[in-house]
Amino acid sequence: MRVIHALMNQSTAARLQAAGGVRTLTFDASQPLQLSNGQMLSPLTIAFETYGALNADKTNAVLVCHALTGDQFVASPNPVTGRPAWWPRIVGPGRPIDTNRFYVICANVLGGCMGTTGPASPAPDGQPYGVRFPVITVADMVRAQAMLVEALGIQSLFLVIGGSIGGMQALQWASAYPKRVFACASIATAARHSAQNIAFYEVGRQAIMADPDWRAGGYLTQGTKPSKGLAVARMAAHITYLSEEALHHKFDRALQGREKVSFGFDADFQVESYLRHQGQSFVDRFDANSYLYITRAVDYFDLAADFGGNLANAFQGGQTRHCVFAFSSDWHYPPEGNRAVVRALIAAGAEASFVEVETGKGHDAFLLEEPAFEAALTGFIDSAAASRGLALQGGA
Amino acid sequence: MRVIHALMNQSTAARLQAAGGVRTLTFDASQPLQLSNGQMLSPLTIAFETYGALNADKTNAVLVCHALTGDQFVASPNPVTGRPAWWPRIVGPGRPIDTNRFYVICANVLGGCMGTTGPASPAPDGQPYGVRFPVITVADMVRAQAMLVEALGIQSLFLVIGGSIGGMQALQWASAYPKRVFACASIATAARHSAQNIAFYEVGRQAIMADPDWRAGGYLTQGTKPSKGLAVARMAAHITYLSEEALHHKFDRALQGREKVSFGFDADFQVESYLRHQGQSFVDRFDANSYLYITRAVDYFDLAADFGGNLANAFQGGQTRHCVFAFSSDWHYPPEGNRAVVRALIAAGAEASFVEVETGKGHDAFLLEEPAFEAALTGFIDSAAASRGLALQGGA
Repeated sequence: MRVIHALMNQSTAARLQAAGGVRTLTFDASQPLQLSNGQMLSPLTIAFETYGALNADKTNAVLVCHALTGDQFVASPNPVTGRPAWWPRIVGPGRPIDTNRFYVICANVLGGCMGTTGPASPAPDGQPYGVRFPVITVADMVRAQAMLVEALGIQSLFLVIGGSIGGMQALQWASAYPKRVFACASIATAARHSAQNIAFYEVGRQAIMADPDWRAGGYLTQGTKPSKGLAVARMAAHITYLSEEALHHKFDRALQGREKVSFGFDADFQVESYLRHQGQSFVDRFDANSYLYITRAVDYFDLAADFGGNLANAFQGGQTRHCVFAFSSDWHYPPEGNRAVVRALIAAGAEASFVEVETGKGHDAFLLEEPAFEAALTGFIDSAAASRGLALQGGA
Repeated sequence: MRVIHALMNQSTAARLQAAGGVRTLTFDASQPLQLSNGQMLSPLTIAFETYGALNADKTNAVLVCHALTGDQFVASPNPVTGRPAWWPRIVGPGRPIDTNRFYVICANVLGGCMGTTGPASPAPDGQPYGVRFPVITVADMVRAQAMLVEALGIQSLFLVIGGSIGGMQALQWASAYPKRVFACASIATAARHSAQNIAFYEVGRQAIMADPDWRAGGYLTQGTKPSKGLAVARMAAHITYLSEEALHHKFDRALQGREKVSFGFDADFQVESYLRHQGQSFVDRFDANSYLYITRAVDYFDLAADFGGNLANAFQGGQTRHCVFAFSSDWHYPPEGNRAVVRALIAAGAEASFVEVETGKGHDAFLLEEPAFEAALTGFIDSAAASRGLALQGGA
């Protein structure tokens, strides 16, 4: 806490406070945030966590970008939900992103619901934004993160890393701020959201908006909660995070606590019970409107579009060294989309490696135990750290 | 109409009537239907269509089994919905299933909503069944079809054919009534519904049941209609009918009637607009409870389960000649599941061919223009017809 204060000037001091009920660090931007839709967003609060210590040269900072329903608690338990750290295998002492060595920052994404300004935040009129919140983009998310990083006094991040839409943010960082990103690890992601993925997100949004308790987005002021619609949205999305193979091995057609089918609509099958649980537990921790806004931002993500349709142009002239990771059974962001990023990086003259991990675990593999992934990531990080002159034993 | 009457004895006469408002042939079973859950279903009406003429030996009958949301109007327009015949490339004069040669029967499936008894039908108390309708199985659907075929005086069908869950019915026919099926064409199907498919159907059911207008299944008597939930269910399922490749080629990220994204939640992308249309048009023609019951029947389908887990046993001793068709980009019922059927058939000593069609069209390919599929199907049918002594020029 003291450290953070020392890093910021007074007008942008980080505070350890209950942001939306979340005990986390928060940063209140002194400037409005320029949005892709042309509007300015103000006020802007970014809720974030840090782990480890920034070295004297401020060269050991790592920004971790979280996925759709993630949060800033990458390496510590979420005090609101009670859920454990979401990436403990990757971030922590002795882990690939070693918090004894690196200063790790993870911020709740713009539009999120864990303390960063989003549709559940109060608008200038004091009432929750709801659907009055502006539609944001991945570029907006990254622009907000850049304000935080600047306020922390960090000129150049050693590493920006993220999986899924966190990977999109990492790529956006490398494209928008090439001099501020030494290394970039994009994992199980794509430079553009596919038609199939837009379709799945649209199903989720329709499920939420079909729920009468959504109240045209105004549920927060009307004392309702579109829990059923949000649960259906989560269930549909969750299927895409797992491979067919993973579902087969995990559940196949096993029945849930019964010997025979019930000839009814209860959760006869374990996979049904599992999905229902995924839906139910999600609504307790996530805001439905945040789900709408973040999925929309991802729909809109097409990094090449701003560069004449040529993805290589998005990375032209950058000095960032990249490693792109894909998982063979990921059908949400298939390896081919990751390979397309690598081709563009190479075409742009960038230093880029590609690691495709053979696994049956599907998209969520980056969150699970995948020794080959961890080994490759460690190698990439250690090599990049050596290039930046970061000592192997402790960075501070 | 006269022909049908002549085929049936008086107690089981087919009638051309407005069954649930549908102008179609109907068959009222004289016996209750034994269901897999142990119950007897009575009364039972089966709405069906026929095309072509039954020959004197009654050896040229083809039973077409429709898919989840199909109907009996395989080769003629649906008089209720106004939609065209659903399989015009396959069934009709000069088509692979040549109605100049074969007598084609297609019945609305048990649990359906196009005239056959289902959850929207009146229960014995005169009120619609709703969720009082018994949970049925694919075996029940086939048992009902067998009653119809028997009433039509047909001892042995020349061919049973179907795609998707129609293919499950065809396989169930060959297993349950091996002497009554000369040839069987199962297309883009599986002998067991996968965990992933159960998961998708469960999402659809949850979407319907989350709609307050579902009224715990009693919407028909309460003057409501769970249209929003049913539309979401259809949208989610529809994604699985198309390949990622097909969605990419058809839509990619093209915008719908605009130059730039709207920064809103309208259907900016064509794929969103398309999906919304699929959902909307579906609710006009389909009953939400039928959707629950038919998807549940398919979830329960596991042909090997009744045979000690060995699929080959399901076909042991049968004389039916099989052709199994799969489409390379079908991820709803992938080629591997179809190959598993072929392996079981071969293991059972059955005559079985396998055709995997290379296509980017996904599961729905069997409904679309696929010349390689049509050519192979024609070859299979002509060869089987020659074996059964059916003349090439006209069967009657």
